[in-house]
Amino acid sequence: MRTPSGDLVAALDIGGTKIAGALVDSGGALLRTARRKTPAEGDAAAVMGAVSAVLDDLAGAPEWPGVRAVGIGSAGPVDASRGTVSPVNIPAWRGFPLADEVRRPAGGRPVVLVGDGVAMTAAEHWRGAARGRDNALCMVVSTGVGGGLVLGGRLHAGPTGNAGHIGHVSVDLDGDPCPCGGRGCVERIASGPNIARRALASGWRPGPDGDTTAAAVAASARAGDPLALASFDRAARALAAGIAATAALVEIQVAVVGGGVAGAGEVLFAPLRQRLREYAALSFTADVEVVPAVLGGDAGLVGAAAAAAERVGVWGGV
Amino acid sequence: MRTPSGDLVAALDIGGTKIAGALVDSGGALLRTARRKTPAEGDAAAVMGAVSAVLDDLAGAPEWPGVRAVGIGSAGPVDASRGTVSPVNIPAWRGFPLADEVRRPAGGRPVVLVGDGVAMTAAEHWRGAARGRDNALCMVVSTGVGGGLVLGGRLHAGPTGNAGHIGHVSVDLDGDPCPCGGRGCVERIASGPNIARRALASGWRPGPDGDTTAAAVAASARAGDPLALASFDRAARALAAGIAATAALVEIQVAVVGGGVAGAGEVLFAPLRQRLREYAALSFTADVEVVPAVLGGDAGLVGAAAAAAERVGVWGGV
Repeated sequence: MRTPSGDLVAALDIGGTKIAGALVDSGGALLRTARRKTPAEGDAAAVMGAVSAVLDDLAGAPEWPGVRAVGIGSAGPVDASRGTVSPVNIPAWRGFPLADEVRRPAGGRPVVLVGDGVAMTAAEHWRGAARGRDNALCMVVSTGVGGGLVLGGRLHAGPTGNAGHIGHVSVDLDGDPCPCGGRGCVERIASGPNIARRALASGWRPGPDGDTTAAAVAASARAGDPLALASFDRAARALAAGIAATAALVEIQVAVVGGGVAGAGEVLFAPLRQRLREYAALSFTADVEVVPAVLGGDAGLVGAAAAAAERVGVWGGV
Repeated sequence: MRTPSGDLVAALDIGGTKIAGALVDSGGALLRTARRKTPAEGDAAAVMGAVSAVLDDLAGAPEWPGVRAVGIGSAGPVDASRGTVSPVNIPAWRGFPLADEVRRPAGGRPVVLVGDGVAMTAAEHWRGAARGRDNALCMVVSTGVGGGLVLGGRLHAGPTGNAGHIGHVSVDLDGDPCPCGGRGCVERIASGPNIARRALASGWRPGPDGDTTAAAVAASARAGDPLALASFDRAARALAAGIAATAALVEIQVAVVGGGVAGAGEVLFAPLRQRLREYAALSFTADVEVVPAVLGGDAGLVGAAAAAAERVGVWGGV
């Protein structure tokens, strides 16, 4: 019988909307969870206060003594080599020393920081749709677009923990300026808010409930609305070009797509698979598969735990 | 004193214009060279005949008994896992079993096949501008655009030997169709023939010598011709977007740019560095350097030898 007290990892998932935490066991189950809203206003300390509150909740659980390491997946960019984060969606944190700040409440346990795209990738490679795949791109398409890479059977986080940053690959060099400073980035075209923005700009109108999110556009697309379909097709083209670029650059077998926008299902995946055939036409890119992520909203927590477990050697290395 | 007879590698560089060969020593020097034109017409056997003639020349050299391995760098795509090549610019070869065909004249020596972009990268990492860099993209900008990656201090060839294929990364998802089947590829915008084509289409006219190559466009650009400058700037934007994409996906420190078009010098490099600042704006991509390749036309041969030496363990692993 497994002794739970000996093999847990505490995980933090830091995003622009919420800060989530969990105690994760060697099977990937979340034994305890906690969460706070990310303070929309206030300074760096206010955001750190929310992180501390989540950690306090976890530390109050009876399983806490069994925690061997703390894994953090944070919205990016991060600098894993310095332990700092500068999330685009958390303006109060620029070069914020998150790993150091977590070290004290972690009580001396090792702290491992990765970008949220890398964390999601660790999760899908460990227990999800990229399991058993040696070369994979995993993506989250949501308010933003993030991702991570598995190369040669291992997470490829890169020197600063940001590799796989597909949301800010430019696929339209004459395209709209992106908040990152670039132009025509995948995120600028394919994120949920941009799908909704483009639909509205083209004349699409919401239903009686007034919902103008990408989910509402998806519902219209499923009902056959041509403007809604066109906005999803444009997102699919950007995602396809980004996946094809990744395949040409590092040779992947599969692209795993998760996040809220992936929840649109075939409204996204059907044009995405079709467009990928157009952009990935080389002999070694033409067979790249596109599959939905399977871990959903917990992937960030499961993956932060997996990345820490791999680095620290808990669970015999994931 | 080094005994040359014990440590040579025979190298082949297979392109759409010429087939070159050399005997390479452990210092990267080409002791013997041979070359034939690539037959523009004729079947697969005709092209192989030119390869055999080059190998015969090399095998006639007094140093041949000291050859330990044969390295082949071929125009791509290649399939290193099967030993086959399907070069876009050599239509007679589709799935041609080049490694097998070379094995007999190689007289039982190991034969290592890589794409020409990977070969050039091996050369620049071994003895050129990427020496000492753990994460680099090396590119050839010429009739086509090829490339290769160094990740974590080692060549990253990918399962089929095609990784780093930056010429067929789409940076303009609405752009012109590319012969590869994609659209808006870096090569479709930044190769020499495309620089020349775009200049002519915009109204640029050659000088009295009638030269309409990219080199002539470069000479006009150096003299301040605005149409020639505009065509190089467009190429620079495409290359910058491709380099920025690579930096976002795998975190590189440096992009090494060689090939005939790089011979234009600052006419290419000045706008390339400027445009790269626009497209690579993330914290972990903003410091990517762009430097010229240093090995010139011999990089394909030196790199094919280096890749084979690393794989086979000649020279103690390069």
